[in-house]
Amino acid sequence: MVDWPFLRSQTAIPASYELEKWQATVLEILRGSADVTLRYFRQSLEVDNKLATGFDPVTIADRECEAYIDQALQCLLPAHGMFGEESGYRAGGDFTWVVDPIDGTRSFICGVPLWGTLMALNNGAEPILGGMYQPWSDELFIGSMLGAFLHRGGVQSRLQTSAVTAVSDAKVACTALDIFAPDALRCFQALASDARLVRFGTDCYGYALLAQGGVDLVVEDGLQPYDIQALIPIIEAAGGVISNWQGGSAALGGSVVAAANATLHADAMRYLAQGH
Amino acid sequence: MVDWPFLRSQTAIPASYELEKWQATVLEILRGSADVTLRYFRQSLEVDNKLATGFDPVTIADRECEAYIDQALQCLLPAHGMFGEESGYRAGGDFTWVVDPIDGTRSFICGVPLWGTLMALNNGAEPILGGMYQPWSDELFIGSMLGAFLHRGGVQSRLQTSAVTAVSDAKVACTALDIFAPDALRCFQALASDARLVRFGTDCYGYALLAQGGVDLVVEDGLQPYDIQALIPIIEAAGGVISNWQGGSAALGGSVVAAANATLHADAMRYLAQGH
Repeated sequence: MVDWPFLRSQTAIPASYELEKWQATVLEILRGSADVTLRYFRQSLEVDNKLATGFDPVTIADRECEAYIDQALQCLLPAHGMFGEESGYRAGGDFTWVVDPIDGTRSFICGVPLWGTLMALNNGAEPILGGMYQPWSDELFIGSMLGAFLHRGGVQSRLQTSAVTAVSDAKVACTALDIFAPDALRCFQALASDARLVRFGTDCYGYALLAQGGVDLVVEDGLQPYDIQALIPIIEAAGGVISNWQGGSAALGGSVVAAANATLHADAMRYLAQGH
Repeated sequence: MVDWPFLRSQTAIPASYELEKWQATVLEILRGSADVTLRYFRQSLEVDNKLATGFDPVTIADRECEAYIDQALQCLLPAHGMFGEESGYRAGGDFTWVVDPIDGTRSFICGVPLWGTLMALNNGAEPILGGMYQPWSDELFIGSMLGAFLHRGGVQSRLQTSAVTAVSDAKVACTALDIFAPDALRCFQALASDARLVRFGTDCYGYALLAQGGVDLVVEDGLQPYDIQALIPIIEAAGGVISNWQGGSAALGGSVVAAANATLHADAMRYLAQGH
């Protein structure tokens, strides 16, 4: 029995979009990536420092996983381009895949299963399909105009954000305090002190939990486009609202606020709008 | 084929210890607890505030899981007592089970699978057997003089802490900054600023990752006995060293430092010994 497609808005799906095919491709490629990433998760591995300052490890798993996704896309969707965290831009047609092979490298190297493999399909203006996979716990989150779903253990369930509408009632996820610029940190801390609780150390997993309804708000800064593009269609199709702190698109990264609904998003923006 | 028992020291196992039987009982009870806890994980649930100040939710899952463990112990090991986080002390003979049905309630209510169900067997002086179970990711950590093991998906693997010997090379896990008393916070932050990285939000899972080798050090404060007793035998049998910040037993909670080995423990104590 086929699950009936859910359109998140009245907008019709453009005729050129092959969403069912692309969705199936993302599921196939992400599931296959487990063979690459889990070969290194909780194993000893070499870690480089990508930047002289700060801690941004690039693991062998990162590079091998991105190479695997690149090859799979060239095979399955040869007309599409790709932008990868590790390898940069490979030009294609109207559609480009934005890939972060391992988002949450600190979690990865500590053995914490909250990292994820991210794939977004960008139509040249915005991400229209996104997938995030956590292979250790076998959780694959996917979203598009077809709806937002969690695939786990052969079961597909629909994702739905929470009904919490006030920061004071909100469970907030955030990766770490050191991702914020100084002005932004003050705004975040004002919000955090009014929130019900803050859960740190979440990376992409925090956005997946927002789509699932476990947390109500994710507030971050200093993101890269490949950190966030895959998560936008998942959150929006699950009923959430995501933007940067100016209220514009979150697709280019930087500051991001993702909320369970528009009312909560507006309440959070009262704290954040002056932060950038 | 039976895995050959590994004695972590030259100390003989007392003749009155039925470790194989008790270990099998812990495995059985913890595995069975998944039916109770996962009924509520990522479902909407009522949350009380246990304390007027601070955020310490008691969930229905907490109470039901402890009642399940209590009943199972009375059935399987009727001569033993139990001390539970929720229900307090039920007197028994020489041996008492120390139980925390859901350690990491913040993770639990946010949908983050880093909480655990903890069971320790205390001989009246110290915990001699401990088990920690994370049912969402199906990870069961167990330790005693028989060795330290991870059971997952029908596979048993031996746990071994890392060989990192200096704080400056160490990956540190810690639940949150708000668990520290003011003096202790200064000590922790001095250590944290010298460490390779700090991973927050870990609760009992951080100690399990220490036994597994993913992190090298766990430094915390404000713990209850039931938060830590189950983790002590796991860490010690995996090669680690755990104490309070004065160097005494960690079994009564309070301040705790758990290290991958004695050299790293001594290096961490340089920061912590003046903190209490």
